[in-house]
Amino acid sequence: MKTTPYRRGFASDNNSGIHPDVLEAICNANSGHTLAYGDDPYTESAVNKFKAHFGKDIEVYFVYNGTGANVLGLNAATEPYHAVICADTAHLHVDECGAPERFTGCKLLAVSTPDGKLSVDGIKPHMHGFDVEHHAQPKVVSITQATELGTVYRPEEIAELSKFVHENGMLLHMDGARLANAAVFLDSELCAITKDVGVDVLSFGGTKNGIMVGEAIVFFNRKLARNFKYLRKQGMQLASKMRFVSVQFDALLSNGLWRKNAAHSNRMAKLLSREVEKLPDLRIQITRPVEANGIFVKVPQDKISVMQSERFFYVWNEETSEVRWMTSFDTTEEDVFSFVDFLKKILIDGS
Amino acid sequence: MKTTPYRRGFASDNNSGIHPDVLEAICNANSGHTLAYGDDPYTESAVNKFKAHFGKDIEVYFVYNGTGANVLGLNAATEPYHAVICADTAHLHVDECGAPERFTGCKLLAVSTPDGKLSVDGIKPHMHGFDVEHHAQPKVVSITQATELGTVYRPEEIAELSKFVHENGMLLHMDGARLANAAVFLDSELCAITKDVGVDVLSFGGTKNGIMVGEAIVFFNRKLARNFKYLRKQGMQLASKMRFVSVQFDALLSNGLWRKNAAHSNRMAKLLSREVEKLPDLRIQITRPVEANGIFVKVPQDKISVMQSERFFYVWNEETSEVRWMTSFDTTEEDVFSFVDFLKKILIDGS
Amino acid sequence: MKTTPYRRGFASDNNSGIHPDVLEAICNANSGHTLAYGDDPYTESAVNKFKAHFGKDIEVYFVYNGTGANVLGLNAATEPYHAVICADTAHLHVDECGAPERFTGCKLLAVSTPDGKLSVDGIKPHMHGFDVEHHAQPKVVSITQATELGTVYRPEEIAELSKFVHENGMLLHMDGARLANAAVFLDSELCAITKDVGVDVLSFGGTKNGIMVGEAIVFFNRKLARNFKYLRKQGMQLASKMRFVSVQFDALLSNGLWRKNAAHSNRMAKLLSREVEKLPDLRIQITRPVEANGIFVKVPQDKISVMQSERFFYVWNEETSEVRWMTSFDTTEEDVFSFVDFLKKILIDGS
Amino acid sequence: MKTTPYRRGFASDNNSGIHPDVLEAICNANSGHTLAYGDDPYTESAVNKFKAHFGKDIEVYFVYNGTGANVLGLNAATEPYHAVICADTAHLHVDECGAPERFTGCKLLAVSTPDGKLSVDGIKPHMHGFDVEHHAQPKVVSITQATELGTVYRPEEIAELSKFVHENGMLLHMDGARLANAAVFLDSELCAITKDVGVDVLSFGGTKNGIMVGEAIVFFNRKLARNFKYLRKQGMQLASKMRFVSVQFDALLSNGLWRKNAAHSNRMAKLLSREVEKLPDLRIQITRPVEANGIFVKVPQDKISVMQSERFFYVWNEETSEVRWMTSFDTTEEDVFSFVDFLKKILIDGS
Repeated sequence: MKTTPYRRGFASDNNSGIHPDVLEAICNANSGHTLAYGDDPYTESAVNKFKAHFGKDIEVYFVYNGTGANVLGLNAATEPYHAVICADTAHLHVDECGAPERFTGCKLLAVSTPDGKLSVDGIKPHMHGFDVEHHAQPKVVSITQATELGTVYRPEEIAELSKFVHENGMLLHMDGARLANAAVFLDSELCAITKDVGVDVLSFGGTKNGIMVGEAIVFFNRKLARNFKYLRKQGMQLASKMRFVSVQFDALLSNGLWRKNAAHSNRMAKLLSREVEKLPDLRIQITRPVEANGIFVKVPQDKISVMQSERFFYVWNEETSEVRWMTSFDTTEEDVFSFVDFLKKILIDGS
Repeated sequence: MKTTPYRRGFASDNNSGIHPDVLEAICNANSGHTLAYGDDPYTESAVNKFKAHFGKDIEVYFVYNGTGANVLGLNAATEPYHAVICADTAHLHVDECGAPERFTGCKLLAVSTPDGKLSVDGIKPHMHGFDVEHHAQPKVVSITQATELGTVYRPEEIAELSKFVHENGMLLHMDGARLANAAVFLDSELCAITKDVGVDVLSFGGTKNGIMVGEAIVFFNRKLARNFKYLRKQGMQLASKMRFVSVQFDALLSNGLWRKNAAHSNRMAKLLSREVEKLPDLRIQITRPVEANGIFVKVPQDKISVMQSERFFYVWNEETSEVRWMTSFDTTEEDVFSFVDFLKKILIDGS
Repeated sequence: MKTTPYRRGFASDNNSGIHPDVLEAICNANSGHTLAYGDDPYTESAVNKFKAHFGKDIEVYFVYNGTGANVLGLNAATEPYHAVICADTAHLHVDECGAPERFTGCKLLAVSTPDGKLSVDGIKPHMHGFDVEHHAQPKVVSITQATELGTVYRPEEIAELSKFVHENGMLLHMDGARLANAAVFLDSELCAITKDVGVDVLSFGGTKNGIMVGEAIVFFNRKLARNFKYLRKQGMQLASKMRFVSVQFDALLSNGLWRKNAAHSNRMAKLLSREVEKLPDLRIQITRPVEANGIFVKVPQDKISVMQSERFFYVWNEETSEVRWMTSFDTTEEDVFSFVDFLKKILIDGS
Repeated sequence: MKTTPYRRGFASDNNSGIHPDVLEAICNANSGHTLAYGDDPYTESAVNKFKAHFGKDIEVYFVYNGTGANVLGLNAATEPYHAVICADTAHLHVDECGAPERFTGCKLLAVSTPDGKLSVDGIKPHMHGFDVEHHAQPKVVSITQATELGTVYRPEEIAELSKFVHENGMLLHMDGARLANAAVFLDSELCAITKDVGVDVLSFGGTKNGIMVGEAIVFFNRKLARNFKYLRKQGMQLASKMRFVSVQFDALLSNGLWRKNAAHSNRMAKLLSREVEKLPDLRIQITRPVEANGIFVKVPQDKISVMQSERFFYVWNEETSEVRWMTSFDTTEEDVFSFVDFLKKILIDGS
């Protein structure tokens, strides 16, 4: 096959490929036979890597993707008559085509937020109807770390949420598709911003941080994992040649690769935002704090197309002309400078 | 990580690794950015490979695994009040943890068969209650090619089934996890034993024939694919870094790799069966026709453990002491001869 | 059994019993055998009564209750990857324990409104992501007539909604649990505020207007009713002794009983609101237009309990001390005056 | 409305109307207001009637119909990855349009039986794959008492089943749509053939024994009822004017009405079978033991239509020309004799 791959752009961190270390791990695992479905030494090793990070009293299950991780993690934490509270920007709510509702039967209750971050005050209006059979019973609060708006929960914010949630007999779910980027921003260990602050079940993202395929569900509340193997299988998320998913996570959690990748990605976002801020054009404005690897920017409506053909990205809000630029583990400084040069050219030079 | 992979055994064709050509294709695709979720040139190329085999008037969707392919293919063909008729040995029925029922809502009607193959006569007892609201309405007949018992439908058998099915306003689904092995046995092209004989929707297997991860759903009845993209996403089976799934199928369908792998696998099964038949021990008996890459054998109950520790495999039926040996694209003649030698040693020499 | 039934109160119109004409119809139908499940002359007659109101080109199905009517009506109009837009006060959203999500698989998108009434402007923010597989596809707008806040859509408001909805390839669902009350308020025929203004499928309420058990689903868009009989059965909503549900609707739609009951109920609400407005106590305030048979009133927090033991009702909003009083077909003027007298006594006289 | 109700026939016990005592109870409950959804003295009284029969340590929930009772009872006892084992003649399997699969997500495993009755031996072939995630996990055995073939489990048969089921960590569900008929045949109390012999959850039938609408779910295993109220609501089976369902059961369980109705019905079946046996025509043969209120008879194919127009009934098996005659609480001796006379006329006299 002859393909001309797209130039590296700022569309999404999942437009990137596989980190070389991860690909090497796949190649290295490709010899001999091993039992399918996870009962193999590669998977055991990968799980141990998670335990090195999060402690031994956890349960780890690998699935195929973020949708699977989120939906099955919630499924393990709920009955069909429960409700899940999340931000109205949550990927869970806006980008999974109703998969959570269909598979779990639960109602999603979306909370409007200024910055993609749930707070106790934001949750409270949904905290009613408990024990009343007419109401879907609130059972899980789901937060995304880093959020879909590029912001990052501080550990104390998560702790406050988990305290409130647990006091009300509920559970805290974290969509950690970009957990590594949050940990880098907070200069924190992974455990310190998840298990240590009361998260019950975590979708641990890999695909957006350099792996090829796979996501992990980490149960800090191990009771939720009882019988989870059946949910994973029935949920169509059990890989037969599991070793090739497992070794990717093993590589990601070895030699600090997860941190290196995320740190680079965050750094590129920061670089891009600093360079953009320097642009002497009031029509281009960064709209949100740049805390992880996403930059949200208002740009002139009529320049969007030409920008996209230079380096592809998505429009976040058509009405306000706000766009999203995501950096990735493989974004280069040259990508950033070249794009900013291009912006200068079309904005300031007017070409 | 230091792992000692299991020795190649006869447990399952999904205990094998990745064929080198497939792995190379993954490596070659690993440069630059490309749009996620399938809107990329790699995927276009892979789909074209399918069209070269099956004609242009098809729809192809890649998913993660066989469960996903079967369940979503059926979902596209049914309403929740429908019934799906399959053999009582069908993977769909016995090995997917109820995923079809849960996701589609449909009832599965299992038919007892002598050889894993459905026939019109086997289906007929379920052909009643049409238009009666109390009965789940039979809508799909699902067959497995090659079957779970290692047998292969002849094209005319499929044609007869599809004729009957279509005359009754129903659809024919094929679980083709081992379609390549069937095509090799029949010395046939892929299209001749699927589309040409009336299959409406096909799960096209890759994982058991040398790829790492992925399965394709091929719609010959294109009406069923209308809106399928939503079912795939809601069904948690949409890969973000799709290119790495697509290129595997591209490689599998290039240079006749699918046929080479399956042919080798079938040949190894035949070799093993021939060598086993030569054993002068009446306690070991091949129980079913060896048409694809599976051999079913009755062996002495008390020897199973020691055999398994030599080359791992699964017991098919504990009561009758029948075991299953699967060969794979990477099974070697040495694997076969060495195993048969071992059998001789423990059976005949009595050690 | 010796029971002391609760005194008539203002808790809900479903706290009332059966209108004598309806009960008589049940008694009259109780002779001989008739086919179960709706293939009987009683049901045919009841359906004809609906056709007399709504025209011949409709489909009518009886179910057990409002939850069943709403959920199954939506099920007939949707695929699992669709979204349903409704007011955030919709019974569908807040009072059905997640039944719509669980049974249809759809996402509910709740819109905040001042008065329980959806508008095109309120809907628009959810009108995006069409054709994008990551988003649950908006397919149905569901309105409640009269609303859960006691307000009534004007026919032109419904027409405007249906025009917008249809222009966007969507469908309009109406939860008409209190449709009769709305028709009385609007001095309108039933057809004029449903079919004539573009409603596609209607939950026609009976229980809150004097019948014992049953609700009707009326399909103005007959295509949606294709195969509906299977959905009703699979949805556990097919009554075996259907005649006894049917005759209740026959009675309700005969001799203008539906209108008489609703008119009385509305009149009692109006009377209650007028009498309450006369009360010289600023602590008691009617908070919403009284258009149907519900009155929303702010009352002194510390008087709620004593009021409830006089005539039972529900608190609508604990924080704002707003309560809801519902009248019913069997509310008497004496009930109203006696309750207002009691209010005077405890509020003004201070006892 | 002018209707000519069908003549009493032998189609089904749900073709009959309401027993006068039950209708009277409905009428008597029709005064004043009472809380909706079951928090009322009528429901309390009805539940107490159940406790008088089954002991105080039970939970009772009323639902609308048999489908609701069976599906929700199973839902309370299962997770979606479980399997339910039943006879292949079970109403659950053949007459509920896939409702169990759709709502619970479970797989149904149907067992072929000679007489509609499951046995330990019949169940055993499905007792495998425990703890293996690929297999839907057998969790519930469901039996019907009296069976769909008119036969009755002896208490010791149920005890043997429940012992086996419980020893294997499973649960025993009983579809008791015609439990009363079974109790009469066995000359037994209701408790002796349910709770006392190890049933965990029971669908207690009313509609086929003289009530208008309603079915009860009785949990002997009270743990299963934890949170059941949410399942009932989400399952669309919560009646608002619950008192009118409750009083029907109150009446049925008062003054031995349940037994009187069932005894009469059984007696009429016995009478019919005896009279039919006397017929000197070898072409008419009773095919199964007449233990409850159903008779299965082979009749001449060419006489079926004319028989049906005299007294309506259903064909059970078209191929074998076997028909089913059901008697009811309101079947009269005259109905029986007149039908047998008619049979004589058309069979023997040849007219």
